[in-house]
Amino acid sequence: MEQGQTLGEKPGHPPAQPILHEVRTAETSAAHLLPKLQAMKESNPHLTLLDVGSGSGTISVSFAKLIPDGHVTGIDLNPNILGRARAVAETAGVKNIEFQEGSVYKLPFADETFDITFCHQVLVHIGTPWDALHEMLRVTKRGGIVAAREGDYETESLWPEHPELSKFHKLMAGLMSAGGGTPTAGRQLLSWALKAGVERSQITLSYGTTSYSTPSDRKICSQGLSDQLRGGSLRTKALKFGLGTETDFEEMAKAWEEWATRDDATLAMLQGEILVQK
Amino acid sequence: MEQGQTLGEKPGHPPAQPILHEVRTAETSAAHLLPKLQAMKESNPHLTLLDVGSGSGTISVSFAKLIPDGHVTGIDLNPNILGRARAVAETAGVKNIEFQEGSVYKLPFADETFDITFCHQVLVHIGTPWDALHEMLRVTKRGGIVAAREGDYETESLWPEHPELSKFHKLMAGLMSAGGGTPTAGRQLLSWALKAGVERSQITLSYGTTSYSTPSDRKICSQGLSDQLRGGSLRTKALKFGLGTETDFEEMAKAWEEWATRDDATLAMLQGEILVQK
Repeated sequence: MEQGQTLGEKPGHPPAQPILHEVRTAETSAAHLLPKLQAMKESNPHLTLLDVGSGSGTISVSFAKLIPDGHVTGIDLNPNILGRARAVAETAGVKNIEFQEGSVYKLPFADETFDITFCHQVLVHIGTPWDALHEMLRVTKRGGIVAAREGDYETESLWPEHPELSKFHKLMAGLMSAGGGTPTAGRQLLSWALKAGVERSQITLSYGTTSYSTPSDRKICSQGLSDQLRGGSLRTKALKFGLGTETDFEEMAKAWEEWATRDDATLAMLQGEILVQK
Repeated sequence: MEQGQTLGEKPGHPPAQPILHEVRTAETSAAHLLPKLQAMKESNPHLTLLDVGSGSGTISVSFAKLIPDGHVTGIDLNPNILGRARAVAETAGVKNIEFQEGSVYKLPFADETFDITFCHQVLVHIGTPWDALHEMLRVTKRGGIVAAREGDYETESLWPEHPELSKFHKLMAGLMSAGGGTPTAGRQLLSWALKAGVERSQITLSYGTTSYSTPSDRKICSQGLSDQLRGGSLRTKALKFGLGTETDFEEMAKAWEEWATRDDATLAMLQGEILVQK
Protein backbone atom coordinates (compact mmCIF):
# COMPACT_ATOMS: atom_id res chain seq x y z
CA MET A 1 0.00 0.00 0.00
CA GLU A 2 3.01 2.24 -0.45
CA GLN A 3 1.66 4.72 -2.94
CA GLY A 4 4.96 6.00 -4.22
CA GLN A 5 7.05 9.03 -3.71
CA THR A 6 5.81 10.94 -6.70
CA LEU A 7 2.23 11.61 -5.64
CA GLY A 8 3.42 14.78 -3.91
CA GLU A 9 2.78 16.45 -0.60
CA LYS A 10 2.04 20.04 0.27
CA PRO A 11 4.75 21.84 2.26
CA GLY A 12 3.68 22.86 5.73
CA HIS A 13 0.74 20.45 5.68
CA PRO A 14 1.82 17.16 7.22
CA PRO A 15 0.32 14.71 4.79
CA ALA A 16 -1.31 11.42 5.63
CA GLN A 17 0.77 9.47 3.18
CA PRO A 18 3.89 9.39 5.41
CA ILE A 19 1.91 7.36 7.96
CA LEU A 20 2.34 4.51 5.48
CA HIS A 21 5.65 5.67 4.01
CA GLU A 22 7.50 6.46 7.17
CA VAL A 23 7.25 2.97 8.65
CA ARG A 24 9.49 1.83 5.81
CA THR A 25 13.16 1.01 6.38
CA ALA A 26 15.90 -0.75 4.43
CA GLU A 27 15.05 -3.84 6.50
CA THR A 28 11.36 -3.83 5.46
CA SER A 29 11.76 -2.53 1.92
CA ALA A 30 15.21 -3.59 0.68
CA ALA A 31 15.68 -6.98 2.35
CA HIS A 32 16.69 -8.51 -0.99
CA LEU A 33 19.61 -6.06 -1.24
CA LEU A 34 20.96 -6.28 2.31
CA PRO A 35 23.05 -9.50 2.09
CA LYS A 36 24.79 -8.11 -1.02
CA LEU A 37 25.24 -4.68 0.63
CA GLN A 38 26.81 -6.31 3.69
CA ALA A 39 29.19 -8.36 1.52
CA MET A 40 30.20 -5.25 -0.46
CA LYS A 41 30.70 -3.29 2.78
CA GLU A 42 33.13 -5.92 4.07
CA SER A 43 35.51 -5.26 1.17
CA ASN A 44 34.78 -1.51 1.06
CA PRO A 45 33.35 0.26 4.14
CA HIS A 46 33.17 3.52 2.17
CA LEU A 47 30.27 2.44 -0.06
CA THR A 48 28.24 5.14 -1.81
CA LEU A 49 24.52 4.51 -2.25
CA LEU A 50 21.94 6.45 -4.25
CA ASP A 51 18.29 6.11 -3.15
CA VAL A 52 16.13 7.20 -6.09
CA GLY A 53 12.69 8.52 -5.13
CA SER A 54 13.74 8.81 -1.51
CA GLY A 55 10.50 10.53 -0.43
CA SER A 56 10.41 11.18 3.29
CA GLY A 57 13.80 9.49 3.64
CA THR A 58 13.20 6.72 6.17
CA ILE A 59 14.69 4.04 3.89
CA SER A 60 17.64 6.28 2.96
CA VAL A 61 18.36 6.99 6.64
CA SER A 62 18.34 3.30 7.53
CA PHE A 63 20.76 2.63 4.63
CA ALA A 64 23.03 5.36 6.03
CA LYS A 65 23.00 3.64 9.43
CA LEU A 66 24.02 0.37 7.76
CA ILE A 67 27.06 2.00 6.10
CA PRO A 68 28.32 4.45 8.78
CA ASP A 69 31.65 4.88 6.93
CA GLY A 70 29.88 5.22 3.58
CA HIS A 71 27.57 7.87 2.16
CA VAL A 72 23.94 7.94 1.06
CA THR A 73 22.39 10.34 -1.44
CA GLY A 74 18.60 10.57 -1.60
CA ILE A 75 17.01 12.11 -4.67
CA ASP A 76 13.37 12.94 -5.28
CA LEU A 77 11.41 14.62 -8.05
CA ASN A 78 9.33 16.46 -5.47
CA PRO A 79 11.25 19.32 -3.82
CA ASN A 80 8.58 19.69 -1.12
CA ILE A 81 9.48 16.36 0.48
CA LEU A 82 13.22 17.11 0.85
CA GLY A 83 12.76 19.12 4.06
CA ARG A 84 10.91 16.23 5.66
CA ALA A 85 13.67 13.81 4.60
CA ARG A 86 16.35 16.08 6.10
CA ALA A 87 14.36 16.31 9.35
CA VAL A 88 14.07 12.50 9.49
CA ALA A 89 17.87 12.25 9.10
CA GLU A 90 18.50 14.90 11.75
CA THR A 91 16.13 13.26 14.24
CA ALA A 92 17.95 9.97 13.69
CA GLY A 93 21.32 11.67 14.22
CA VAL A 94 22.52 10.49 10.80
CA LYS A 95 25.20 12.68 9.19
CA ASN A 96 26.46 10.62 6.22
CA ILE A 97 23.50 11.52 4.05
CA GLU A 98 22.26 14.26 1.73
CA PHE A 99 19.01 14.84 -0.14
CA GLN A 100 18.51 16.68 -3.40
CA GLU A 101 15.94 17.22 -6.15
CA GLY A 102 16.14 15.32 -9.40
CA SER A 103 14.47 13.00 -11.89
CA VAL A 104 15.22 9.30 -12.32
CA TYR A 105 15.21 9.95 -16.07
CA LYS A 106 18.09 12.43 -15.79
CA LEU A 107 20.11 11.80 -12.67
CA PRO A 108 22.41 14.76 -11.92
CA PHE A 109 25.50 12.59 -11.46
CA ALA A 110 28.46 11.54 -13.60
CA ASP A 111 28.73 8.03 -15.02
CA GLU A 112 29.84 5.39 -12.50
CA THR A 113 29.38 7.50 -9.36
CA PHE A 114 27.71 5.04 -6.93
CA ASP A 115 28.44 1.54 -5.68
CA ILE A 116 24.72 0.85 -5.20
CA THR A 117 21.73 2.54 -6.86
CA PHE A 118 18.35 1.65 -5.35
CA CYS A 119 14.69 2.47 -5.88
CA HIS A 120 11.42 1.31 -4.32
CA GLN A 121 7.93 2.11 -5.60
CA VAL A 122 9.28 4.47 -8.26
CA LEU A 123 9.22 2.47 -11.52
CA VAL A 124 5.59 1.47 -10.83
CA HIS A 125 4.59 5.12 -11.28
CA ILE A 126 6.43 6.13 -14.46
CA GLY A 127 5.91 5.69 -18.19
CA THR A 128 9.21 4.21 -19.38
CA PRO A 129 10.75 2.39 -16.41
CA TRP A 130 13.42 0.74 -18.61
CA ASP A 131 14.81 4.23 -19.35
CA ALA A 132 14.95 4.88 -15.60
CA LEU A 133 16.81 1.59 -15.03
CA HIS A 134 19.21 2.46 -17.87
CA GLU A 135 19.91 5.80 -16.18
CA MET A 136 20.37 4.10 -12.79
CA LEU A 137 22.86 1.73 -14.43
CA ARG A 138 24.74 4.68 -15.94
CA VAL A 139 25.48 6.30 -12.57
CA THR A 140 26.48 2.95 -11.02
CA LYS A 141 30.13 1.83 -10.92
CA ARG A 142 31.27 -1.25 -12.80
CA GLY A 143 31.06 -4.09 -10.32
CA GLY A 144 28.27 -2.20 -8.52
CA ILE A 145 24.61 -3.07 -8.05
CA VAL A 146 21.32 -1.61 -9.23
CA ALA A 147 18.48 -2.77 -6.99
CA ALA A 148 14.76 -2.16 -7.41
CA ARG A 149 11.62 -3.28 -5.57
CA GLU A 150 8.23 -2.55 -7.10
CA GLY A 151 4.77 -3.61 -6.05
CA ASP A 152 2.43 -5.70 -8.12
CA TYR A 153 -0.83 -3.98 -7.29
CA GLU A 154 -2.92 -6.52 -9.21
CA THR A 155 -1.86 -9.17 -6.68
CA GLU A 156 -3.49 -7.19 -3.89
CA SER A 157 -5.14 -9.67 -1.63
CA LEU A 158 -7.73 -8.33 0.80
CA TRP A 159 -9.96 -10.01 3.39
CA PRO A 160 -12.77 -9.69 4.22
CA GLU A 161 -14.22 -8.60 0.90
CA HIS A 162 -16.18 -5.34 0.84
CA PRO A 163 -17.74 -3.60 -2.18
CA GLU A 164 -16.25 -0.21 -1.19
CA LEU A 165 -12.80 -1.73 -0.86
CA SER A 166 -13.13 -3.32 -4.31
CA LYS A 167 -13.96 0.15 -5.61
CA PHE A 168 -10.89 1.48 -3.80
CA HIS A 169 -8.69 -1.11 -5.52
CA LYS A 170 -10.03 0.01 -8.91
CA LEU A 171 -9.52 3.65 -7.94
CA MET A 172 -5.87 3.03 -7.08
CA ALA A 173 -5.21 1.04 -10.26
CA GLY A 174 -6.96 3.79 -12.24
CA LEU A 175 -4.82 6.47 -10.57
CA MET A 176 -1.64 4.55 -11.36
CA SER A 177 -2.59 4.06 -14.98
CA ALA A 178 -3.82 7.67 -15.36
CA GLY A 179 -0.42 8.85 -14.09
CA GLY A 180 1.39 6.68 -16.66
CA GLY A 181 2.25 3.93 -14.19
CA THR A 182 1.86 0.13 -14.26
CA PRO A 183 -0.32 -1.72 -11.73
CA THR A 184 1.50 -4.98 -12.64
CA ALA A 185 5.00 -3.52 -12.15
CA GLY A 186 6.23 -6.35 -9.91
CA ARG A 187 5.87 -9.04 -12.55
CA GLN A 188 7.34 -6.80 -15.28
CA LEU A 189 10.46 -5.70 -13.43
CA LEU A 190 12.62 -8.44 -14.97
CA SER A 191 11.44 -7.57 -18.49
CA TRP A 192 12.21 -3.87 -17.84
CA ALA A 193 15.76 -4.66 -16.73
CA LEU A 194 16.30 -6.70 -19.92
CA LYS A 195 14.90 -3.80 -21.94
CA ALA A 196 17.37 -1.49 -20.17
CA GLY A 197 20.12 -3.48 -21.86
CA VAL A 198 21.41 -5.99 -19.32
CA GLU A 199 21.75 -9.75 -19.75
CA ARG A 200 19.51 -12.21 -17.89
CA SER A 201 22.61 -13.64 -16.19
CA GLN A 202 23.27 -10.25 -14.54
CA ILE A 203 19.81 -10.20 -12.92
CA THR A 204 18.64 -11.90 -9.73
CA LEU A 205 14.84 -11.81 -9.43
CA SER A 206 13.01 -12.50 -6.20
CA TYR A 207 9.63 -11.70 -4.67
CA GLY A 208 8.79 -10.14 -1.34
CA THR A 209 5.51 -9.20 0.29
CA THR A 210 3.94 -6.18 1.92
CA SER A 211 1.13 -6.91 4.35
CA TYR A 212 -1.02 -5.36 7.05
CA SER A 213 -2.62 -7.84 9.44
CA THR A 214 -1.76 -7.14 13.06
CA PRO A 215 -4.07 -4.74 14.94
CA SER A 216 -1.43 -1.96 14.86
CA ASP A 217 -0.59 -2.51 11.16
CA ARG A 218 -4.29 -2.50 10.27
CA LYS A 219 -4.69 0.80 12.11
CA ILE A 220 -1.70 2.38 10.31
CA CYS A 221 -3.02 1.19 6.95
CA SER A 222 -6.61 2.23 7.56
CA GLN A 223 -5.67 5.63 8.97
CA GLY A 224 -3.21 6.36 6.15
CA LEU A 225 -5.71 5.46 3.45
CA SER A 226 -8.78 7.08 4.99
CA ASP A 227 -6.84 10.30 5.62
CA GLN A 228 -5.74 10.27 1.97
CA LEU A 229 -9.32 9.71 0.83
CA ARG A 230 -10.56 12.60 2.98
CA GLY A 231 -7.87 15.17 2.32
CA GLY A 232 -4.67 13.89 0.78
CA SER A 233 -3.07 14.00 -2.63
CA LEU A 234 -4.82 10.75 -3.52
CA ARG A 235 -8.19 12.53 -3.24
CA THR A 236 -6.92 15.56 -5.18
CA LYS A 237 -5.61 13.41 -8.04
CA ALA A 238 -8.65 11.13 -8.11
CA LEU A 239 -10.97 14.16 -8.36
CA LYS A 240 -8.76 15.66 -11.09
CA PHE A 241 -8.91 12.47 -13.17
CA GLY A 242 -12.67 12.06 -12.55
CA LEU A 243 -12.19 8.70 -10.83
CA GLY A 244 -14.82 9.25 -8.16
CA THR A 245 -16.80 11.74 -6.11
CA GLU A 246 -16.31 13.09 -2.60
CA THR A 247 -19.18 10.85 -1.46
CA ASP A 248 -17.47 7.80 -2.97
CA PHE A 249 -14.26 8.61 -1.12
CA GLU A 250 -16.07 9.05 2.19
CA GLU A 251 -17.71 5.62 1.76
CA MET A 252 -14.33 4.06 1.02
CA ALA A 253 -12.73 5.77 4.03
CA LYS A 254 -15.49 4.41 6.29
CA ALA A 255 -15.01 0.92 4.84
CA TRP A 256 -11.27 1.08 5.65
CA GLU A 257 -12.07 2.13 9.20
CA GLU A 258 -14.51 -0.75 9.58
CA TRP A 259 -11.99 -3.18 8.04
CA ALA A 260 -9.34 -2.22 10.62
CA THR A 261 -11.62 -3.23 13.51
CA ARG A 262 -11.96 -6.83 12.32
CA ASP A 263 -9.80 -9.63 13.69
CA ASP A 264 -9.96 -11.52 10.38
CA ALA A 265 -8.79 -8.50 8.35
CA THR A 266 -5.66 -8.80 6.22
CA LEU A 267 -4.16 -7.06 3.22
CA ALA A 268 -1.14 -8.30 1.28
CA MET A 269 0.55 -7.92 -2.07
CA LEU A 270 3.58 -9.20 -3.96
CA GLN A 271 6.65 -7.05 -4.50
CA GLY A 272 8.95 -7.82 -7.44
CA GLU A 273 12.63 -7.43 -6.50
CA ILE A 274 15.71 -7.33 -8.72
CA LEU A 275 19.43 -7.04 -8.19
CA VAL A 276 21.40 -6.18 -11.33
CA GLN A 277 25.14 -6.79 -11.28
CA LYS A 278 26.82 -4.13 -13.43
CA MET B 1 1.82 -23.96 -8.69
CA GLU B 2 1.69 -26.68 -6.11
CA GLN B 3 -1.60 -28.28 -6.99
CA GLY B 4 -2.15 -30.09 -3.74
CA GLN B 5 -1.79 -33.58 -2.54
CA THR B 6 -5.38 -34.56 -3.07
CA LEU B 7 -5.54 -34.59 -6.87
CA GLY B 8 -4.33 -38.19 -6.80
CA GLU B 9 -1.80 -40.22 -8.76
CA LYS B 10 -2.01 -43.66 -10.34
CA PRO B 11 0.21 -46.31 -8.77
CA GLY B 12 2.93 -47.63 -11.06
CA HIS B 13 2.59 -44.63 -13.38
CA PRO B 14 5.06 -41.97 -12.27
CA PRO B 15 2.92 -38.87 -12.52
CA ALA B 16 4.08 -35.46 -13.72
CA GLN B 17 2.86 -33.72 -10.62
CA PRO B 18 5.81 -34.78 -8.44
CA ILE B 19 8.12 -32.80 -10.74
CA LEU B 20 6.57 -29.74 -9.07
CA HIS B 21 5.84 -31.39 -5.72
CA GLU B 22 9.10 -33.15 -5.11
CA VAL B 23 11.24 -30.01 -5.21
CA ARG B 24 9.45 -28.95 -2.01
CA THR B 25 11.16 -29.15 1.37
CA ALA B 26 10.49 -27.77 4.84
CA GLU B 27 12.94 -24.99 3.94
CA THR B 28 10.97 -23.93 0.83
CA SER B 29 7.47 -24.64 2.10
CA ALA B 30 7.48 -24.25 5.88
CA ALA B 31 10.00 -21.41 6.39
CA HIS B 32 7.52 -19.59 8.66
CA LEU B 33 7.47 -22.59 11.03
CA LEU B 34 11.21 -23.35 11.21
CA PRO B 35 12.33 -20.73 13.79
CA LYS B 36 9.56 -21.93 16.14
CA LEU B 37 10.41 -25.60 15.45
CA GLN B 38 14.08 -24.96 16.25
CA ALA B 39 13.16 -23.17 19.49
CA MET B 40 10.84 -26.04 20.52
CA LYS B 41 13.54 -28.60 19.64
CA GLU B 42 16.02 -26.89 21.96
CA SER B 43 13.80 -27.57 24.95
CA ASN B 44 12.60 -30.97 23.64
CA PRO B 45 14.67 -32.86 21.03
CA HIS B 46 12.00 -35.58 20.91
CA LEU B 47 9.39 -33.48 19.10
CA THR B 48 6.58 -35.23 17.29
CA LEU B 49 5.30 -33.68 14.07
CA LEU B 50 2.28 -34.54 11.93
CA ASP B 51 2.41 -33.55 8.25
CA VAL B 52 -1.18 -33.56 6.97
CA GLY B 53 -1.52 -34.17 3.21
CA SER B 54 2.07 -35.35 3.00
CA GLY B 55 1.80 -36.42 -0.65
CA SER B 56 5.10 -37.66 -2.02
CA GLY B 57 6.73 -36.92 1.32
CA THR B 58 9.59 -34.57 0.47
CA ILE B 59 8.51 -31.97 3.03
CA SER B 60 7.90 -34.64 5.70
CA VAL B 61 11.36 -36.14 5.09
CA SER B 62 13.06 -32.78 5.44
CA PHE B 63 11.18 -32.19 8.71
CA ALA B 64 12.44 -35.61 9.92
CA LYS B 65 16.02 -34.56 9.13
CA LEU B 66 15.53 -31.37 11.18
CA ILE B 67 14.39 -33.36 14.25
CA PRO B 68 16.63 -36.48 14.14
CA ASP B 69 15.70 -37.36 17.76
CA GLY B 70 12.03 -36.67 17.11
CA HIS B 71 9.44 -38.38 14.93
CA VAL B 72 7.41 -37.39 11.87
CA THR B 73 4.10 -38.87 10.79
CA GLY B 74 2.86 -38.15 7.28
CA ILE B 75 -0.79 -38.70 6.46
CA ASP B 76 -2.54 -38.52 3.11
CA LEU B 77 -6.06 -39.18 1.88
CA ASN B 78 -4.66 -40.91 -1.19
CA PRO B 79 -3.29 -44.40 -0.41
CA ASN B 80 -1.57 -44.57 -3.81
CA ILE B 81 0.96 -41.88 -2.91
CA LEU B 82 2.13 -43.56 0.32
CA GLY B 83 4.53 -45.94 -1.47
CA ARG B 84 6.22 -43.02 -3.18
CA ALA B 85 6.56 -41.18 0.15
CA ARG B 86 8.13 -44.25 1.79
CA ALA B 87 10.57 -44.56 -1.13
CA VAL B 88 11.53 -40.90 -0.76
CA ALA B 89 12.24 -41.49 2.95
CA GLU B 90 14.25 -44.65 2.24
CA THR B 91 16.34 -42.95 -0.48
CA ALA B 92 17.08 -40.13 1.98
CA GLY B 93 18.09 -42.67 4.66
CA VAL B 94 15.50 -41.22 7.05
CA LYS B 95 14.20 -43.65 9.67
CA ASN B 96 12.27 -41.46 12.13
CA ILE B 97 9.24 -41.24 9.89
CA GLU B 98 6.09 -43.14 8.99
CA PHE B 99 3.32 -42.58 6.46
CA GLN B 100 -0.30 -43.65 6.68
CA GLU B 101 -3.70 -43.08 5.06
CA GLY B 102 -6.22 -40.71 6.60
CA SER B 103 -8.43 -37.66 6.22
CA VAL B 104 -7.73 -34.24 7.69
CA TYR B 105 -11.39 -34.18 8.74
CA LYS B 106 -10.96 -37.29 10.91
CA LEU B 107 -7.35 -37.72 11.92
CA PRO B 108 -6.74 -41.25 13.32
CA PHE B 109 -4.97 -39.99 16.45
CA ALA B 110 -5.91 -39.32 20.07
CA ASP B 111 -6.32 -35.78 21.37
CA GLU B 112 -3.05 -33.96 22.10
CA THR B 113 -0.73 -36.42 20.30
CA PHE B 114 1.67 -34.11 18.41
CA ASP B 115 3.88 -31.16 19.32
CA ILE B 116 3.49 -29.70 15.82
CA THR B 117 0.75 -30.29 13.25
CA PHE B 118 1.45 -28.91 9.78
CA CYS B 119 -0.22 -28.73 6.39
CA HIS B 120 0.63 -27.12 3.05
CA GLN B 121 -1.71 -26.83 0.06
CA VAL B 122 -4.38 -28.92 1.73
CA LEU B 123 -6.95 -26.42 3.05
CA VAL B 124 -7.04 -24.72 -0.38
CA HIS B 125 -8.60 -27.88 -1.82
CA ILE B 126 -11.33 -28.71 0.72
CA GLY B 127 -14.82 -27.50 1.48
CA THR B 128 -14.71 -26.69 5.20
CA PRO B 129 -11.10 -25.84 6.02
CA TRP B 130 -12.03 -24.53 9.48
CA ASP B 131 -13.19 -28.05 10.41
CA ALA B 132 -9.82 -29.36 9.25
CA LEU B 133 -8.00 -26.77 11.38
CA HIS B 134 -10.20 -27.67 14.35
CA GLU B 135 -9.23 -31.33 13.90
CA MET B 136 -5.54 -30.42 13.57
CA LEU B 137 -5.84 -28.45 16.82
CA ARG B 138 -7.46 -31.46 18.52
CA VAL B 139 -4.51 -33.77 17.88
CA THR B 140 -1.97 -31.09 18.91
CA LYS B 141 -0.64 -30.93 22.48
CA ARG B 142 -1.35 -27.92 24.69
CA GLY B 143 1.61 -25.60 24.21
CA GLY B 144 2.10 -27.05 20.72
CA ILE B 145 1.75 -25.43 17.30
CA VAL B 146 -0.60 -25.82 14.35
CA ALA B 147 1.02 -24.44 11.19
CA ALA B 148 -0.52 -24.06 7.74
CA ARG B 149 0.64 -22.56 4.45
CA GLU B 150 -1.88 -22.17 1.64
CA GLY B 151 -1.57 -20.53 -1.76
CA ASP B 152 -3.65 -17.60 -2.91
CA TYR B 153 -4.16 -18.61 -6.51
CA GLU B 154 -5.89 -15.36 -7.42
CA THR B 155 -2.63 -13.52 -6.76
CA GLU B 156 -0.93 -15.53 -9.50
CA SER B 157 1.32 -13.15 -11.32
CA LEU B 158 2.58 -14.24 -14.74
CA TRP B 159 4.79 -12.57 -17.33
CA PRO B 160 4.75 -12.35 -20.29
CA GLU B 161 1.00 -12.45 -20.78
CA HIS B 162 -0.36 -15.09 -23.16
CA PRO B 163 -4.02 -15.86 -23.99
CA GLU B 164 -3.50 -19.61 -23.50
CA LEU B 165 -1.91 -19.04 -20.10
CA SER B 166 -4.84 -16.84 -19.05
CA LYS B 167 -7.10 -19.73 -20.03
CA PHE B 168 -4.91 -22.05 -17.97
CA HIS B 169 -5.30 -19.79 -14.93
CA LYS B 170 -9.09 -19.95 -15.30
CA LEU B 171 -8.92 -23.72 -15.77
CA MET B 172 -6.99 -24.15 -12.52
CA ALA B 173 -9.30 -21.83 -10.56
CA GLY B 174 -12.27 -23.70 -12.05
CA LEU B 175 -10.78 -27.06 -11.03
CA MET B 176 -10.22 -25.85 -7.49
CA SER B 177 -13.75 -24.51 -7.17
CA ALA B 178 -15.28 -27.61 -8.82
CA GLY B 179 -13.48 -29.75 -6.25
CA GLY B 180 -14.87 -27.66 -3.39
CA GLY B 181 -11.67 -25.67 -2.88
CA THR B 182 -10.93 -21.95 -2.54
CA PRO B 183 -8.71 -20.11 -5.04
CA THR B 184 -8.27 -17.28 -2.50
CA ALA B 185 -7.24 -19.58 0.36
CA GLY B 186 -4.13 -17.57 1.30
CA ARG B 187 -6.05 -14.44 2.27
CA GLN B 188 -8.75 -16.48 4.11
CA LEU B 189 -6.44 -18.59 6.25
CA LEU B 190 -6.63 -16.22 9.22
CA SER B 191 -10.44 -16.15 9.07
CA TRP B 192 -10.53 -19.95 8.93
CA ALA B 193 -8.35 -20.26 12.03
CA LEU B 194 -10.70 -17.88 13.90
CA LYS B 195 -13.66 -19.95 12.70
CA ALA B 196 -11.89 -23.07 14.07
CA GLY B 197 -12.25 -21.53 17.51
CA VAL B 198 -8.94 -19.89 18.38
CA GLU B 199 -8.34 -16.30 19.48
CA ARG B 200 -6.62 -13.75 17.23
CA SER B 201 -3.86 -13.43 19.82
CA GLN B 202 -2.95 -17.11 19.33
CA ILE B 203 -2.38 -16.62 15.59
CA THR B 204 0.69 -15.29 13.81
CA LEU B 205 -0.07 -14.52 10.16
CA SER B 206 2.61 -13.98 7.54
CA TYR B 207 2.94 -14.21 3.78
CA GLY B 208 5.46 -16.07 1.66
CA THR B 209 5.86 -16.48 -2.06
CA THR B 210 6.24 -19.28 -4.57
CA SER B 211 7.93 -18.33 -7.82
CA TYR B 212 9.50 -19.78 -10.95
CA SER B 213 11.88 -17.46 -12.77
CA THR B 214 15.34 -18.96 -13.23
CA PRO B 215 15.90 -21.03 -16.39
CA SER B 216 15.87 -24.29 -14.39
CA ASP B 217 12.78 -23.34 -12.35
CA ARG B 218 10.94 -22.30 -15.52
CA LYS B 219 11.77 -25.68 -17.06
CA ILE B 220 10.53 -27.60 -13.98
CA CYS B 221 7.31 -25.55 -13.94
CA SER B 222 6.66 -25.80 -17.67
CA GLN B 223 7.42 -29.52 -17.82
CA GLY B 224 5.28 -30.31 -14.77
CA LEU B 225 2.29 -28.39 -16.10
CA SER B 226 2.52 -29.46 -19.74
CA ASP B 227 2.88 -33.13 -18.68
CA GLN B 228 -0.24 -32.71 -16.51
CA LEU B 229 -2.13 -31.11 -19.40
CA ARG B 230 -1.16 -33.95 -21.74
CA GLY B 231 -1.66 -36.95 -19.49
CA GLY B 232 -1.94 -36.23 -15.78
CA SER B 233 -4.71 -36.12 -13.24
CA LEU B 234 -5.23 -32.44 -14.00
CA ARG B 235 -6.31 -33.35 -17.55
CA THR B 236 -8.49 -36.21 -16.30
CA LYS B 237 -10.29 -33.98 -13.80
CA ALA B 238 -10.65 -31.05 -16.20
CA LEU B 239 -12.23 -33.33 -18.82
CA LYS B 240 -14.53 -34.83 -16.17
CA PHE B 241 -15.75 -31.37 -15.10
CA GLY B 242 -16.08 -30.21 -18.74
CA LEU B 243 -13.55 -27.41 -18.23
CA GLY B 244 -11.89 -27.78 -21.64
CA THR B 245 -11.11 -30.04 -24.57
CA GLU B 246 -8.01 -32.07 -25.44
CA THR B 247 -7.19 -29.44 -28.08
CA ASP B 248 -7.40 -26.68 -25.47
CA PHE B 249 -5.02 -28.54 -23.19
CA GLU B 250 -2.50 -29.10 -26.00
CA GLU B 251 -2.53 -25.37 -26.80
CA MET B 252 -1.94 -24.55 -23.14
CA ALA B 253 0.89 -27.10 -22.89
CA LYS B 254 2.58 -25.54 -25.94
CA ALA B 255 2.19 -22.07 -24.42
CA TRP B 256 3.91 -23.23 -21.20
CA GLU B 257 6.76 -24.68 -23.25
CA GLU B 258 7.15 -21.41 -25.15
CA TRP B 259 6.99 -19.41 -21.89
CA ALA B 260 9.85 -21.43 -20.40
CA THR B 261 12.19 -20.42 -23.25
CA ARG B 262 11.83 -16.68 -22.56
CA ASP B 263 14.37 -14.76 -20.49
CA ASP B 264 11.68 -12.35 -19.26
CA ALA B 265 9.37 -15.14 -18.05
CA THR B 266 8.31 -15.24 -14.43
CA LEU B 267 5.48 -16.73 -12.38
CA ALA B 268 4.79 -15.92 -8.74
CA MET B 269 2.03 -16.10 -6.16
CA LEU B 270 1.38 -15.27 -2.52
CA GLN B 271 1.18 -17.97 0.14
CA GLY B 272 -0.74 -17.26 3.33
CA GLU B 273 1.02 -18.68 6.39
CA ILE B 274 -0.24 -19.13 9.96
CA LEU B 275 1.17 -20.38 13.22
CA VAL B 276 -1.43 -21.12 15.88
CA GLN B 277 -0.22 -21.43 19.46
CA LYS B 278 -2.42 -23.97 21.23
